[in-house]
Amino acid sequence: MASYGFLGLGIMGKAMASNLIRAGFDVTVWNRSADKCAPLVALGARQAATPREVAASCDITFAILSDPAAAREVCFGSDGVLAGIGEGRGYVDMSTVDDQTAAEIASAISAKGGRFLEAPVSGTKKPAEDGTLIILASGDQSLYDEAGSAFDKLGKKRLYLGAVGQGARMKLVVNMIMGSMLSALGEGLALGLKGGLDGAQILDVLDAGAMACPMFKGKGPMLLAENYSTSFPLKHMQKDLRLALALGEELGQSLHTSSSANEVFKRALIAGYGDEDIAAVYKVIKP
Amino acid sequence: MASYGFLGLGIMGKAMASNLIRAGFDVTVWNRSADKCAPLVALGARQAATPREVAASCDITFAILSDPAAAREVCFGSDGVLAGIGEGRGYVDMSTVDDQTAAEIASAISAKGGRFLEAPVSGTKKPAEDGTLIILASGDQSLYDEAGSAFDKLGKKRLYLGAVGQGARMKLVVNMIMGSMLSALGEGLALGLKGGLDGAQILDVLDAGAMACPMFKGKGPMLLAENYSTSFPLKHMQKDLRLALALGEELGQSLHTSSSANEVFKRALIAGYGDEDIAAVYKVIKP
Amino acid sequence: MASYGFLGLGIMGKAMASNLIRAGFDVTVWNRSADKCAPLVALGARQAATPREVAASCDITFAILSDPAAAREVCFGSDGVLAGIGEGRGYVDMSTVDDQTAAEIASAISAKGGRFLEAPVSGTKKPAEDGTLIILASGDQSLYDEAGSAFDKLGKKRLYLGAVGQGARMKLVVNMIMGSMLSALGEGLALGLKGGLDGAQILDVLDAGAMACPMFKGKGPMLLAENYSTSFPLKHMQKDLRLALALGEELGQSLHTSSSANEVFKRALIAGYGDEDIAAVYKVIKP
Amino acid sequence: MASYGFLGLGIMGKAMASNLIRAGFDVTVWNRSADKCAPLVALGARQAATPREVAASCDITFAILSDPAAAREVCFGSDGVLAGIGEGRGYVDMSTVDDQTAAEIASAISAKGGRFLEAPVSGTKKPAEDGTLIILASGDQSLYDEAGSAFDKLGKKRLYLGAVGQGARMKLVVNMIMGSMLSALGEGLALGLKGGLDGAQILDVLDAGAMACPMFKGKGPMLLAENYSTSFPLKHMQKDLRLALALGEELGQSLHTSSSANEVFKRALIAGYGDEDIAAVYKVIKP
Repeated sequence: MASYGFLGLGIMGKAMASNLIRAGFDVTVWNRSADKCAPLVALGARQAATPREVAASCDITFAILSDPAAAREVCFGSDGVLAGIGEGRGYVDMSTVDDQTAAEIASAISAKGGRFLEAPVSGTKKPAEDGTLIILASGDQSLYDEAGSAFDKLGKKRLYLGAVGQGARMKLVVNMIMGSMLSALGEGLALGLKGGLDGAQILDVLDAGAMACPMFKGKGPMLLAENYSTSFPLKHMQKDLRLALALGEELGQSLHTSSSANEVFKRALIAGYGDEDIAAVYKVIKP
Repeated sequence: MASYGFLGLGIMGKAMASNLIRAGFDVTVWNRSADKCAPLVALGARQAATPREVAASCDITFAILSDPAAAREVCFGSDGVLAGIGEGRGYVDMSTVDDQTAAEIASAISAKGGRFLEAPVSGTKKPAEDGTLIILASGDQSLYDEAGSAFDKLGKKRLYLGAVGQGARMKLVVNMIMGSMLSALGEGLALGLKGGLDGAQILDVLDAGAMACPMFKGKGPMLLAENYSTSFPLKHMQKDLRLALALGEELGQSLHTSSSANEVFKRALIAGYGDEDIAAVYKVIKP
Repeated sequence: MASYGFLGLGIMGKAMASNLIRAGFDVTVWNRSADKCAPLVALGARQAATPREVAASCDITFAILSDPAAAREVCFGSDGVLAGIGEGRGYVDMSTVDDQTAAEIASAISAKGGRFLEAPVSGTKKPAEDGTLIILASGDQSLYDEAGSAFDKLGKKRLYLGAVGQGARMKLVVNMIMGSMLSALGEGLALGLKGGLDGAQILDVLDAGAMACPMFKGKGPMLLAENYSTSFPLKHMQKDLRLALALGEELGQSLHTSSSANEVFKRALIAGYGDEDIAAVYKVIKP
Repeated sequence: MASYGFLGLGIMGKAMASNLIRAGFDVTVWNRSADKCAPLVALGARQAATPREVAASCDITFAILSDPAAAREVCFGSDGVLAGIGEGRGYVDMSTVDDQTAAEIASAISAKGGRFLEAPVSGTKKPAEDGTLIILASGDQSLYDEAGSAFDKLGKKRLYLGAVGQGARMKLVVNMIMGSMLSALGEGLALGLKGGLDGAQILDVLDAGAMACPMFKGKGPMLLAENYSTSFPLKHMQKDLRLALALGEELGQSLHTSSSANEVFKRALIAGYGDEDIAAVYKVIKP
């Protein structure tokens, strides 16, 4: 039976590793603060002392770290993945990182004979727990195939998107659409309310028709209640819009609607709402 | 048993009147070209010679006409609804008309002692046939309640939105959101394709996540196939965006994202795509 | 010698009528509050009791009223211009009015055998006093020619633009460009200041180069000083932007940059800055 | 008497060096293609074989190179400025380069004991010949003062803007405003023409009023004539807009109007007009 490593046991990683263990996979875990390993060991995981040890002993090592700096440290650090990985072993980084970071990790792993997959996910805490993430993989296709049975415990949907970098691009495209949709929803709600319509009825009509979607169902009532408790921080959405617009500059794509939405999100960020939920964009739309 | 009239047997009206008759209602129909009455008479409807006759003999008369001019003619014409309607009888105009037209019809009907409801619908041919329209009613609330059992055969959802005019406003708000969403989808697809992503995979990811909606499922493949066969003409969407922006001017609501989407649709209209489907907005986004 | 009437002695009208009198023209004045006539009578003007009397006795009657309602009253009122005007006499309305008002006045004057010119001006108090207005005339061309020597005392520039309505269109086009320029100036200043540049130096560089213009020279220091004392009320600029965008809808012209500027001005209006100078748009740009 | 070096004798450099020589300065020139030195030697310049030789023998060395790569090569190349510059000598790079390049050159020159000034210019061929450039200097202030008498032969206006990088920022701010103004002019002209106004009259009205500026006087007739012969390539303007927007992202400044103008310029670039004059943005506005 294949052996799997899992690096990073934050909110996402803990839920994901648990799903693998519960499904009967042979899993070795590591986390910077070692105490976070205990609940997973209790479920049946082995525990390793360093990323190096995990990468050296497992067929496929997954990682989900909080940011590019952490992703780099876990790979390039003195007892990092790179020091342990050997010929043919696989490393799947599910963190959301920038192009540059993904490219450098990919090339370093390859140079050591390892195989690499960049696999950011769409979805937050709940889908991680439920095993219903969407996995956007790019890089080594043989590794994508071999990791398939594990991916299927982590997500409800997985796609192989081509060379390293394409996973990140897909995420930008999808989040850019989401940002414009949320800005449009906010404008529609604010306009309707000023026009004497009932907010709940507007959401009701939307939910009964062609635009019915989980996002409107989730964020719509938050806008009406002016409840902006964070599940997706606004600053991250604005960053994704910024990066998507930069991609549009690079590739030569006009983005009139998305650039307007970006300016609206930017105003929300400047107004100090960056750590609130993306729904807080409504605060600069409504006045 | 209450008696119902139905005026206007175009694509929408024919399907809607059929649903009422099949459900066992007592229905009297009229259409400008009388030959269109035959299939409904075959289903069990009575046929009347004029709108006046229908309005004078039925408890509640529904109408769905092609445009404001037709709606006015059927109401104010020499043998029109106004000439027939008596104390307490109800008139439900389901046509999509402008504020001014709705207000004039409402006030004329009231002056004759009748009751009036403006009830534009969201949905096109298929939902009309399936009885799954969304009915956005405003005006006389007692009439809304009495027409309820008939509405429930015509649509899957009905809302009472207040004074005459609010139904039309709801439709503008919802269509404004739709226009921005479609422009955003087009920008996302075009960007992704230029970035080497697969269009079907982009739609796949959207469909698996928080933005999954019937509109993307319907229009997404049309964009990829550059198939713009009309179900909702682009010129009507641009008109709704224009009217929604005018409402924003009147009510004092900033609409950065929607006004950008309107400019994109306007360019599509100027380019000559007004009679194609709203999906044809993609033609000016993609280049 | 030809005789001239002048109706409306507000800030603009007083200055303009004075210039005509000082230039030696035979001028008869009228104002709703008769006491405003005194200073002009002191300069040599005759005074009349009603617009009717002025129109009946003068070859060419000029008017500059505060808004469309006042322009209508002075023309259509019981002792109005229309009651007095006779075959061949001229009426030059220099008020800024909407298309509809101008068209109705034009047609009523013509029906009585009079000749009509719509002649809104570009410029405010100072140019009115200095006789350096820009006169945008449209309507009866023979009247334009005959009024020429008077126009030349009122303005430094006059243009004949065609049929009634074209003067108003010219003003919308020019003010639309002005609104976008001011929004752009505000964005540039705000960006430069956040980037550590000196505001006065930014204005200095602009003033030394290809964008040097009286508007930047006038409004630039106001923005830096956050001095918004009104010479052109912001609400009027937003109205002109709105009307220009409506013209763009009617004529089929995409206006991406101008519609963005309009949304920025609209936010300033919503924020309550409508009665301050157009420079106050900076308040919603700067934060 | 102080001695001056001049590196780079392209269109701009040749005109600028000539102005220094004609004004009686002691000038040593160098150019990659040595034959371009002859006309300047004929005017009285000395000629050097390498940038190193120039920097080692002159008190202040000016350079104006075509792009960042050339600016780097002239500084860091084996016989470059860095190899020659000694304690206290001055290097003034008047090329338009990115932040990173300017910062690296500045720091390398300082490390060798030299003094550095970044001094991009506003203005093209004609102002270079006429000595009417605008010089946007930042870096070593003592060098700015010492180079003053030379700057005054090159330009009509010079500003000291602070630390290295501020000169480039000023240029971005000014060009961002220019881009929005040109897009606004295009929209106004196109709208007016569709509305039956005469293009030359529109320009005439603009030129008589508060928006009168050399740019409208220069570009306006080009738009009407659809003459896009290049003096400022459109691709450079779009690049400046892109960089200004990136600065807005970095500093937290909303730029609704400028980002719309950028999208319009981007469409012109995508349509293939990058090498035509910035006036060619009109081609995507007009249809």
